[in-house]
Amino acid sequence: MGIAIGAGIAVLTGLGAGVGIGLATAKSSEAIARQPEAAGQISKNLILGCALAEATAIYGFLIAILLIFMS
Amino acid sequence: MGIAIGAGIAVLTGLGAGVGIGLATAKSSEAIARQPEAAGQISKNLILGCALAEATAIYGFLIAILLIFMS
Amino acid sequence: MGIAIGAGIAVLTGLGAGVGIGLATAKSSEAIARQPEAAGQISKNLILGCALAEATAIYGFLIAILLIFMS
Amino acid sequence: MGIAIGAGIAVLTGLGAGVGIGLATAKSSEAIARQPEAAGQISKNLILGCALAEATAIYGFLIAILLIFMS
Amino acid sequence: MGIAIGAGIAVLTGLGAGVGIGLATAKSSEAIARQPEAAGQISKNLILGCALAEATAIYGFLIAILLIFMS
Repeated sequence: MGIAIGAGIAVLTGLGAGVGIGLATAKSSEAIARQPEAAGQISKNLILGCALAEATAIYGFLIAILLIFMS
Repeated sequence: MGIAIGAGIAVLTGLGAGVGIGLATAKSSEAIARQPEAAGQISKNLILGCALAEATAIYGFLIAILLIFMS
Repeated sequence: MGIAIGAGIAVLTGLGAGVGIGLATAKSSEAIARQPEAAGQISKNLILGCALAEATAIYGFLIAILLIFMS
Repeated sequence: MGIAIGAGIAVLTGLGAGVGIGLATAKSSEAIARQPEAAGQISKNLILGCALAEATAIYGFLIAILLIFMS
Repeated sequence: MGIAIGAGIAVLTGLGAGVGIGLATAKSSEAIARQPEAAGQISKNLILGCALAEATAIYGFLIAILLIFMS
């Protein structure tokens, strides 16, 4: 039982990445609307930020996978 | 006991959709107030976003239903 | 023990209403500061929103009351 | 064990006050930067709001103290 | 089992610092974009705020370390 609860809590980490990527995309859309000629740089910036945020979700995913298969 | 707690936690997923749809509607109202002639496009955009957010609530709802009836 | 924990979690629903009503009041104050002549309509709007948000807190309160007295 | 967990959860109430006071201070700094001559009134307003927010943290603190010493 | 859960919850404190430092950095970037000549003072301010926020994460980290090694 403890393993199932632990894996469930571990994968919950993705919650932060979901909110953060949404926030980053929202502000990037706003920024592109204000300065359309900077769209290239803003998109590059957004992809960098999203990759780093996505990584935190992957940490939770890996720990959940480990918890399920290592027991 | 575990099934009841699990179903309760599962349906809690709707929390994020509730906050997200509220946020989307708030910013859409603001956007329509700033550019009333773009109201049609903003509403279309809002409905798309709300449908996707609503889907996350439905995932939690389905898992809760499965937990209650599959045991 | 389960009933006490359940009632405590149930009444926690009020948390969302507290944050939401605070947010609504904050933005309403901002809106009245920007357009003082629309204060009447903004207050009416705020009272409607707060009543609906308050209702969510009352749902949690009722479930907690039911959990305490129905057992 | 239940008492220790209960006291830990009770004192967690301070979380809301911490976020709220930070938010209030942030917006007050912004407001003073926009209207420096209104700094006195803004500070008075901030102190009132912080006192009320602080009170919510004290409720959690008191319940935690009660839980520890009343058992 | 209680020790592992306690240490896991204790180190969760870093969550607040992570959100707070992100928020502070976001608003600092915005402030530097608006007033580039004040970048020095804004960075000094940001470092002070981040150090204080980081400290809250370290409290949780220390309690988790204590929980693991003191038992």
